[in-house]
Amino acid sequence: RALTIGLIPGDGIGKEVIPAGRRVLEALPASLGLKFDFVDLNAGWETFEKTGVALPEETVQTLQSCNGGLFGAVSSPTTAVKGYSSPIVALRKRLALYANVRPVKTVATAKKPIDMVIVRENTEDLYVKEEKTYETPEGKVAEAIKRISEKASTNIAAMAGEIALRRQKIRASGAPSIHKGPLVTVTHKSNVLSQTDGLFRTASKAALADPKFSSVKVEEQIVDSMVYKLFRQPEAYDVIVAPNLYGDILSDGAAALVGSLGLVPSANVGKTFALGEPCHGSAPDIQGQGISNPIATIRSAALMLEFLDEEEAAAKIYAAVDANLEEGKYVSPDLGGTAKTEEVLQDILRRL
Amino acid sequence: RALTIGLIPGDGIGKEVIPAGRRVLEALPASLGLKFDFVDLNAGWETFEKTGVALPEETVQTLQSCNGGLFGAVSSPTTAVKGYSSPIVALRKRLALYANVRPVKTVATAKKPIDMVIVRENTEDLYVKEEKTYETPEGKVAEAIKRISEKASTNIAAMAGEIALRRQKIRASGAPSIHKGPLVTVTHKSNVLSQTDGLFRTASKAALADPKFSSVKVEEQIVDSMVYKLFRQPEAYDVIVAPNLYGDILSDGAAALVGSLGLVPSANVGKTFALGEPCHGSAPDIQGQGISNPIATIRSAALMLEFLDEEEAAAKIYAAVDANLEEGKYVSPDLGGTAKTEEVLQDILRRL
Ligand SMILES: CC(C)[C@H](C(=O)O)[C@@H](O)C(=O)O
Ligand SMILES: CC(C)[C@H](C(=O)O)[C@@H](O)C(=O)O
Repeated sequence: RALTIGLIPGDGIGKEVIPAGRRVLEALPASLGLKFDFVDLNAGWETFEKTGVALPEETVQTLQSCNGGLFGAVSSPTTAVKGYSSPIVALRKRLALYANVRPVKTVATAKKPIDMVIVRENTEDLYVKEEKTYETPEGKVAEAIKRISEKASTNIAAMAGEIALRRQKIRASGAPSIHKGPLVTVTHKSNVLSQTDGLFRTASKAALADPKFSSVKVEEQIVDSMVYKLFRQPEAYDVIVAPNLYGDILSDGAAALVGSLGLVPSANVGKTFALGEPCHGSAPDIQGQGISNPIATIRSAALMLEFLDEEEAAAKIYAAVDANLEEGKYVSPDLGGTAKTEEVLQDILRRL
Repeated sequence: RALTIGLIPGDGIGKEVIPAGRRVLEALPASLGLKFDFVDLNAGWETFEKTGVALPEETVQTLQSCNGGLFGAVSSPTTAVKGYSSPIVALRKRLALYANVRPVKTVATAKKPIDMVIVRENTEDLYVKEEKTYETPEGKVAEAIKRISEKASTNIAAMAGEIALRRQKIRASGAPSIHKGPLVTVTHKSNVLSQTDGLFRTASKAALADPKFSSVKVEEQIVDSMVYKLFRQPEAYDVIVAPNLYGDILSDGAAALVGSLGLVPSANVGKTFALGEPCHGSAPDIQGQGISNPIATIRSAALMLEFLDEEEAAAKIYAAVDANLEEGKYVSPDLGGTAKTEEVLQDILRRL
């Protein structure tokens, strides 16, 4: 099978980790029968500075003809800049990448193992970015719209249910696990936002009431309490589904539990396309030193493959990364080690 | 000085902890010259079931003639119930309690000491609860308004600055501290919400640029990154200021760091009134067993006194609670002990 993969390094360490992701894909054993064509694409702050647009139309259109992609990270200006708008937020909408899937997992040998997936709605909520500002006698007032639809909530909850079932299947095949059965935790703030988050809640629960999810236990947590529980008993959670903004916050929180954002991958998933994206940012403070952790991107490449139904290839990459982490010999500075990006990459490549 | 204090136990363990708060106030040494008059007031789910309103007008009006109050917790229905709306959210708006102040602190002897205050805007953001739902060919869509004003953002940032200065003054008086100088961290998500959170950001920074805050260091964090940092290096934070919803989430996250929500107080603060409120909820699961932790409420009573300029009385209560925690003999179940509410209370009373 030939897969065309768009590569968007973006800014900062995006330029260091995306090449690492590419090299891992290229190094997959020939026996898997995969052939990759890579297309280099632009987006981000540097692109904006050069061309006046953060997300060139060409990038969107080329991606539309790709099977998947890898997105690095982009720097955002600290103050609002006319015409600039986050390219990743725009891409998610333009390509209808309705789910943002973020697995957060310790290695099996960890003292306090955690193994959860945050399934974040990826197209609406406050991310519709419909804002306005007006003057009043008491100063400026700004408003933003938080939009929640039955359709998107239903789709994301169904995705969460599917992922819970898939994880259960892998566990049933004998993989060691801290979870007994599939669990989906629906996160919202419907005690305050009875209509918007209320709709997310009822649509999610309705979707998960489908007979195909009958083996999946469904619970709910108010978002503030969810953050509390995430830190008090992270081992209890299997799949967490949340509207866009809560999902954004929860996934950074969960990342803190495994020691570094540099370990946590994500995939922006549509019906026929998946865009891998490390959870970390462009980290201008360490850019150019060759010390960024490539693992989040390498795992994002695997996650992308999972959603392109190449589970065997994905499993190979996960295993190589886990082996690197379990040995703990080539460890990047974000995890307290001294290994360079290239050393971590080489160690993972030789384990493939 | 005579202080009239409204008591609103609400539901669940609110009924167990508010009386404990009252008894601590009553037991303050006569030498402080404080005399308390208590007024019992209703609000919450039980009140709604009995009377059809969750926040009786009488409660609001009586509180308006009080100096301060203590609010326990209320149970919310899990599905939207016509006519029911959270009384604490309504009270904050009705009484113009524009700041929600939440100190999160370990005892001085803790291995990893933390000492921060979360200053949460308390009247606007998504808590304006302006929502609507409409039908589309693809199903229901709901929208909520997130409103941020220059005025409220300026006021809350100024409050954060004042608190940072006050904390620095206490430190300068020789109290042991993990902080070198006053620091305010402004939290927002202006990389996505450039107008609303952008306004919070610029108004906060402008307020903190006032010469009276010249000794206060001002930093900023995007909310997702803030949650990450909160868990990775909580000791670094002194005062965190945030819009309403982020403040809600961050304070539960911070509470997780000190072991239990049962320890974390808050005060809803207006120009001339303060309402103490434990950060925990009504906890129906443990209600009636006499095992709820009264410390969050007792500390909330102290915090209320602080904002009524009774700092000496507040300090006495804090010291008694810290002594209880440091000894670790009477410890409630949420912290892994077996002490009853009454035993923890008695221990604190005898230390006053
Ligand atoms: C960079 C930012 C717009 C983005 C988001 O909020 O979605 C990031 O935090 C993420 O989680 O991918
Ligand atoms: C009960 C709820 C409405 C409330 C809030 O969201 O403000 C609570 O979580 C709090 O933090 O006081």
